[in-house]
Amino acid sequence: MSERTIEEFREEREQLNEIVMKYGGLSIKRFYNLDSQVYDEGALPAKTKELLGLVASLVLRCDDCIKYHIIQCYEAGVTSEELEEALAIGLVVGGSIAIPHLRRAFQAWDELQGAAKS
Amino acid sequence: MSERTIEEFREEREQLNEIVMKYGGLSIKRFYNLDSQVYDEGALPAKTKELLGLVASLVLRCDDCIKYHIIQCYEAGVTSEELEEALAIGLVVGGSIAIPHLRRAFQAWDELQGAAKS
Amino acid sequence: MSERTIEEFREEREQLNEIVMKYGGLSIKRFYNLDSQVYDEGALPAKTKELLGLVASLVLRCDDCIKYHIIQCYEAGVTSEELEEALAIGLVVGGSIAIPHLRRAFQAWDELQGAAKS
Amino acid sequence: MSERTIEEFREEREQLNEIVMKYGGLSIKRFYNLDSQVYDEGALPAKTKELLGLVASLVLRCDDCIKYHIIQCYEAGVTSEELEEALAIGLVVGGSIAIPHLRRAFQAWDELQGAAKS
Amino acid sequence: MSERTIEEFREEREQLNEIVMKYGGLSIKRFYNLDSQVYDEGALPAKTKELLGLVASLVLRCDDCIKYHIIQCYEAGVTSEELEEALAIGLVVGGSIAIPHLRRAFQAWDELQGAAKS
Amino acid sequence: MSERTIEEFREEREQLNEIVMKYGGLSIKRFYNLDSQVYDEGALPAKTKELLGLVASLVLRCDDCIKYHIIQCYEAGVTSEELEEALAIGLVVGGSIAIPHLRRAFQAWDELQGAAKS
Repeated sequence: MSERTIEEFREEREQLNEIVMKYGGLSIKRFYNLDSQVYDEGALPAKTKELLGLVASLVLRCDDCIKYHIIQCYEAGVTSEELEEALAIGLVVGGSIAIPHLRRAFQAWDELQGAAKS
Repeated sequence: MSERTIEEFREEREQLNEIVMKYGGLSIKRFYNLDSQVYDEGALPAKTKELLGLVASLVLRCDDCIKYHIIQCYEAGVTSEELEEALAIGLVVGGSIAIPHLRRAFQAWDELQGAAKS
Repeated sequence: MSERTIEEFREEREQLNEIVMKYGGLSIKRFYNLDSQVYDEGALPAKTKELLGLVASLVLRCDDCIKYHIIQCYEAGVTSEELEEALAIGLVVGGSIAIPHLRRAFQAWDELQGAAKS
Repeated sequence: MSERTIEEFREEREQLNEIVMKYGGLSIKRFYNLDSQVYDEGALPAKTKELLGLVASLVLRCDDCIKYHIIQCYEAGVTSEELEEALAIGLVVGGSIAIPHLRRAFQAWDELQGAAKS
Repeated sequence: MSERTIEEFREEREQLNEIVMKYGGLSIKRFYNLDSQVYDEGALPAKTKELLGLVASLVLRCDDCIKYHIIQCYEAGVTSEELEEALAIGLVVGGSIAIPHLRRAFQAWDELQGAAKS
Repeated sequence: MSERTIEEFREEREQLNEIVMKYGGLSIKRFYNLDSQVYDEGALPAKTKELLGLVASLVLRCDDCIKYHIIQCYEAGVTSEELEEALAIGLVVGGSIAIPHLRRAFQAWDELQGAAKS
């Protein structure tokens, strides 16, 4: 993803989250907070937590969640080797049904690498 | 969704269902009938049944099914507060992996509200 | 389930939850609170919310969650007709793969009815 | 499974299905009929259909459904080689998360083979 | 799908697989080999294996996988009647949540039939 | 789990895997090898990989897989704090439907801790 595409992904996310917050009550807001807290640096480094979120998203086959964690992994300094090993676990656990999502995961990663070079 | 978009959603659904009926045998036709009957008003009001279909669709994370039941809920007179409480249950049961679908559920609902106002 | 069996189910649940709380940090505790709050009476009656939890549990095929919501539905005054209609929606949405869980759902319900009579 | 165990599996199934039928309305009964019809000999032989049901059950990871289709495959004359190839597809599609169910599938098959020999 | 569309589907697949191979290590490559081998003609005919892959993809609700196996089934000489019976099993096992995928499955099949005629 | 229980869990696993190997062809054997290789120490430490396997197993809700990775995490030197943070991510991603499995995960961990002390 070019920096622009990342920006677009984030903007759409923001816009939709605003609609969620417009209708969402206390429970949904608390869930959102929780969803942010569990990835905070702790006994496990933030980098490891992003990889956990990524692999969970791959085996549950959610493209939006995968893309989000791919960006987070990239910003947390995950290397291509580390990413590949995590995704390989997700592939073996989740099976060939996860392959279309694996493809899009590596595509997003590849775009982030390209954006970094240019 | 503007009334036009709802119309488009229904038209595409109709067109594809015609292809299903072109190839589908007795079992598929019976399944379609069954899929319609279980939402009929009964001991439970139709409104409650649409909410059941919506939450089931959210935790199973099917965007098309969610959009369909959002429209049905809207037409059955579900209020924004009722919808929010049902979706909050779906979010807590189904987890953060359901959030991208929750966003699109509220987006569709918001469009229906806007269409009603204009 | 006889009253005794319900008691046993609850006791085992309590014991295991104590182990969760022994190790669980703030996030897990907050999740548990959230998991309780979303079923509170609100714009939707508590009875409807238990049915939503039940159908979500059926389509996601979790026996423990089904049994828990069956008991909650029973205590919230759900009738056999209402329960049947909700489970029929879960069956049609979730497919025949849900049948073994549907069987155990009705078995638990039948035991609760028997306990009430004796 | 010894013939006795198969019998026990069927008896428990029967007993629970009777409870389902005690509470179940027309929709549930129609679903049960449908669930039987789709496996009838047709353009595809019944043997192939049982293998389709088995692989679907494996990737969705339902032990009761797997055991049921293992017995049906056995009675339809599926060979060990055919069964292995079908389960291998299920394993690759469904991933390592299916392995515990794969183990129990082969265990049931092995017991059926043993029962046939004795 | 017109022949052109099939070609496009394959090209995109190829391009993304090249990105996977660019980053993927030995495990991912071995998985890809395995994912190809299990569909080879064996004790079960290749045609049956493609149907097994198709039904597994339908109940797991992966559109890309469904489209891929629909094309493979078409090229393996599966008839419309055989395809319908296999998809009916997938629908009954997987439930109404699979209907949007069933629609797209038949749509792809219908396009392949049209391409064959023209 | 006392050392004895761990031993029993492993023995049953071994026995069933022997049955898999008795019937399993090359593809299944290769899958088993792959399933072992992806957890080998690499760019990511073995400890991190076991946590990835654990969280994937939790969100996919497979008790056998969870127990296996809990033991592996224990032997790889994962601390209670690290385990808790990983499981909290799994809970938030996977939702309340994962709670029964979370309970059993902590129960197994608690038994391992107890075994270590005695």
